[in-house]
Amino acid sequence: MATLSNSTNIFWQDCQIGRPERQQLLNQKGCVVWITGLSGSGKSTLACSLSRELYSRGKLSYVLDGDNLRHGLNKDLGFKTDDRTENIRRTGEVAKLFADAGLICVASLISPYRRDRDTCRFMLPDRNFIEVFMNMPLELCEARDPKGLYKLARAGKIKGFTGIDDPYEPPINCEIEIKQEDSGVCPTPTLMAGQVVTYLEKEGFLEH
Amino acid sequence: MATLSNSTNIFWQDCQIGRPERQQLLNQKGCVVWITGLSGSGKSTLACSLSRELYSRGKLSYVLDGDNLRHGLNKDLGFKTDDRTENIRRTGEVAKLFADAGLICVASLISPYRRDRDTCRFMLPDRNFIEVFMNMPLELCEARDPKGLYKLARAGKIKGFTGIDDPYEPPINCEIEIKQEDSGVCPTPTLMAGQVVTYLEKEGFLEH
Repeated sequence: MATLSNSTNIFWQDCQIGRPERQQLLNQKGCVVWITGLSGSGKSTLACSLSRELYSRGKLSYVLDGDNLRHGLNKDLGFKTDDRTENIRRTGEVAKLFADAGLICVASLISPYRRDRDTCRFMLPDRNFIEVFMNMPLELCEARDPKGLYKLARAGKIKGFTGIDDPYEPPINCEIEIKQEDSGVCPTPTLMAGQVVTYLEKEGFLEH
Repeated sequence: MATLSNSTNIFWQDCQIGRPERQQLLNQKGCVVWITGLSGSGKSTLACSLSRELYSRGKLSYVLDGDNLRHGLNKDLGFKTDDRTENIRRTGEVAKLFADAGLICVASLISPYRRDRDTCRFMLPDRNFIEVFMNMPLELCEARDPKGLYKLARAGKIKGFTGIDDPYEPPINCEIEIKQEDSGVCPTPTLMAGQVVTYLEKEGFLEH
């Protein structure tokens, strides 16, 4: 085993059917729509609405949900710093595979640290990582508290909860920002999805 | 309908776009074709040929190659027993996601242990895991030695090499077995792929 390091004796297999052929079959371009934001900011709602909107246009998407992945691929990981980073790295690697398969992969994770999100961004070819920032105020997310987690965090029953006793680092140059109107009204799921679809269309992802 | 307004309530719902909708879009059923066999037995050759054949029929497949994954998702893993098991577990979890996305996911890994393969089988709904056994004699694989690994293993420069000083456990009830003709002639890549496609067609995977 001494002569076998992690990447020794591994050969890249090429195959004649590649990304261009799959994209042609699907009439779209593979990419990763990475939705980041606080718990309760509407990430899953947007992911669902976006997949519906894309489906209605005959486009194939797949949602990678941070919570769901923890039941399968990432079930060996906890919530310590290293585990969170590994959770996001693996999600990024899988999202990359889905984009390579030609799908519009919608990843929905709090992913609070810029460094971790950028790790995923740099896995992909330029412009194929579309960062969507759910820019909703903490107060709103906490008032919604759909999973009751803010309450637990405030009571000290969860430690290291993003927004309470662990930081959320907002994106600096995200491709899309979803926020409240000046009046304080939140966009509907359909409006949020429309904002993303408009971007995908403009950038040419909805044709091959 | 899910609504997300400036109210403090979120109305949860499952995502309306699921596996049935994706399968309808693709006119196929998602599944995992798991190709197992010795190094040099033709796994990658079959995977490539199969993806070509499926593409020619307008079907979307994606190849998960054990070696390729070690450059990305599994790059933190080595070749010790636990790492090999984790390598296969993660590949199985990702294959499951691809099947859920509606794709015909072709996983190509030596995967020498029955237990590890069965772990992946049981992740999936019944009949959606199609085990393909590349039943080629060790002598043939070693004579081919496309990566020069048998030579290194025989020289003692690689330890724990499947077929040399680590066992390969053949499947007991695989769905498909690929082997030499009685004359000793190996099937061509096209013939091998045809054998799998015939199975997929018969089992209804090539329509939704």
